[in-house]
Amino acid sequence: MSEVTEDNDFDASNGGSPDASGNGASEPPGGGQYVDPNGEFSRDMQYITTRITADGRDGYPVEPGRYRLAVSRACPWANRAVIVRRLLGLENVLSMALAGPTHDERSWTFDLDPGGRDPVLGIERLQEAYFARFPGYPRGITVPAMVDIPTGQVVTNDFVQITIDLSTQWTAHHRPGAPDLYPEHLRDEIDAVNDEVFQDVNNGVYQAGFAGSQEAYERAYHRLFDRLDRLSERLRTRRYLVGDTITEADVRLFTTLVRFDAVYHGHFKCNRSKLTEMPVLWAYARDLFQTPGFGDTIDFVQIKQHYYEVHRDINPTGIVPVGPETAGWRTRHGREVLGGHPFGDGTPPGPPPPHETVPAARQ
Amino acid sequence: MSEVTEDNDFDASNGGSPDASGNGASEPPGGGQYVDPNGEFSRDMQYITTRITADGRDGYPVEPGRYRLAVSRACPWANRAVIVRRLLGLENVLSMALAGPTHDERSWTFDLDPGGRDPVLGIERLQEAYFARFPGYPRGITVPAMVDIPTGQVVTNDFVQITIDLSTQWTAHHRPGAPDLYPEHLRDEIDAVNDEVFQDVNNGVYQAGFAGSQEAYERAYHRLFDRLDRLSERLRTRRYLVGDTITEADVRLFTTLVRFDAVYHGHFKCNRSKLTEMPVLWAYARDLFQTPGFGDTIDFVQIKQHYYEVHRDINPTGIVPVGPETAGWRTRHGREVLGGHPFGDGTPPGPPPPHETVPAARQ
Repeated sequence: MSEVTEDNDFDASNGGSPDASGNGASEPPGGGQYVDPNGEFSRDMQYITTRITADGRDGYPVEPGRYRLAVSRACPWANRAVIVRRLLGLENVLSMALAGPTHDERSWTFDLDPGGRDPVLGIERLQEAYFARFPGYPRGITVPAMVDIPTGQVVTNDFVQITIDLSTQWTAHHRPGAPDLYPEHLRDEIDAVNDEVFQDVNNGVYQAGFAGSQEAYERAYHRLFDRLDRLSERLRTRRYLVGDTITEADVRLFTTLVRFDAVYHGHFKCNRSKLTEMPVLWAYARDLFQTPGFGDTIDFVQIKQHYYEVHRDINPTGIVPVGPETAGWRTRHGREVLGGHPFGDGTPPGPPPPHETVPAARQ
Repeated sequence: MSEVTEDNDFDASNGGSPDASGNGASEPPGGGQYVDPNGEFSRDMQYITTRITADGRDGYPVEPGRYRLAVSRACPWANRAVIVRRLLGLENVLSMALAGPTHDERSWTFDLDPGGRDPVLGIERLQEAYFARFPGYPRGITVPAMVDIPTGQVVTNDFVQITIDLSTQWTAHHRPGAPDLYPEHLRDEIDAVNDEVFQDVNNGVYQAGFAGSQEAYERAYHRLFDRLDRLSERLRTRRYLVGDTITEADVRLFTTLVRFDAVYHGHFKCNRSKLTEMPVLWAYARDLFQTPGFGDTIDFVQIKQHYYEVHRDINPTGIVPVGPETAGWRTRHGREVLGGHPFGDGTPPGPPPPHETVPAARQ
């Protein structure tokens, strides 16, 4: 096991470049984000950068059954890892701890589990796994987080790296027919798309919603919709963002689009139009939603509960909207005519295991 | 002039029946609304019920140039009077005082006027006209309000009666070709429609937005959309709500529909769908918007400023959304095929006077 210091862990790969491509945070309870003097929302970009790798260079080798992926279905950053784990068929080698949709100032909690404890880690609050490794850990207790089951210690919460490592380090355990979500010859293009999508879309919606001034909000709003217009243009004639199969880039755009009308449109004031009013992106998002491994990870009820109940600073009543209707997600998208093969030469994943199946009523 | 007591004035016609048809309030500053123990939003339904009539029975006879209609373009209840005044061509006999979109706890203010004073009444705050008649007036300072210019005293703020009286008491001063918005043989039907529309739609959106509990919000949400579904059904085969011309009933539904996507959808969580996603109502609302006297009274900028800046209890940041796009309001509605004549045997009004014209950029 690595003996990295806290400094190493928190700062190593992306701590020095808070605007670097693909970084973001899962609304850490207990700090980790703030509004600067210009009213701009900023994320704390310092994560625990220890990696779980095939060669175990950080002390944490890939090993079936050893780690537990802690997520909440509500969180878009965790949703990436949930989708990638499904697409790659890692359910049997990497188990999943499911925190509830809301959290207090200190931590995500396992309040959905019997007795309020994760049955494998035996903890009530994800914070306990952070403290087990770094007593008094001062930053946000974020999901996704990979936890080392034998020691109960968090290994990493660096969600940008987590999905890439699932694709590139866990290959020995991928299911037969698993897609290559991060193919070597497309990485530069994927990274470039991810960078723009992160800045203007994934994090852009938060910058609009948490803006501390009218001007900061309007800047984020225009960057967001300008980017969505460009993405619409890109996706008008091609089925996926990069290449002609699903990649990491699609996963990252999807997790924001699927929350757009349910949360970002109203709660974050991203209201030039709904996703349903942007025909190309709406068809693209439905195509992914209907692809095994995407829509079956979505719980619209928990998504709305999270944002509307936790962010009392912008929704003081905590009242959760009943709408919007979600039946449209299952309507025909017609994107097959653009060609492309979602899984390339591979196959779609089977259905999720029963204990990880989202009830139909919550979709 | 009438010597009605305060009790008479406040309680006479509708004070004893707070749920009576067509009542409502313009979010009175300084009280007038509250959330009851069940979390239901309630309006103070007691208005100043003095009437301006052809026969002057309350001491205020109809008289050209004597009264000033105080409104804010933001307010849906005032919007009714602004539209009816336009449709009937009363601009030259009944002038209009235009309060700004926001108000503080005490009063609507004339902050849009040079020096912050209404040029005719000479007051900074509408409250002064209320106090001129009733020192220490304890209820909400609401718009619309009719003010007696010679004395500077408010005559009435009973907005339900104000538009009816413009239609029935000011007939000697209606323009040639003015429509009959409250025809005798249709009054029962108009009153019945108005009652349902008030309870579930006009006031229903406020009951959703200001609900003090999840349950109260959900009750209002379902009543609202159930009613909108029934109104869609009614309007599927007929161009207007009652008869085959514009009536008071259309005016009252329009003022809520025109604010729906800009405010109620997000700010009040009325988000089953946008107006633009309800095809019959959206076409009906566009038809009215494009009818002279309706759309030319609408200032989307002031509407949004009002709700988002004033209601800090549900929008603590005061940030005003940039969206939604409003260009759609001018697209073809196709409702002519349903027959009907907007103005019956009459004619549309001409354009508004230059000093009352809303700049195109605000529409």
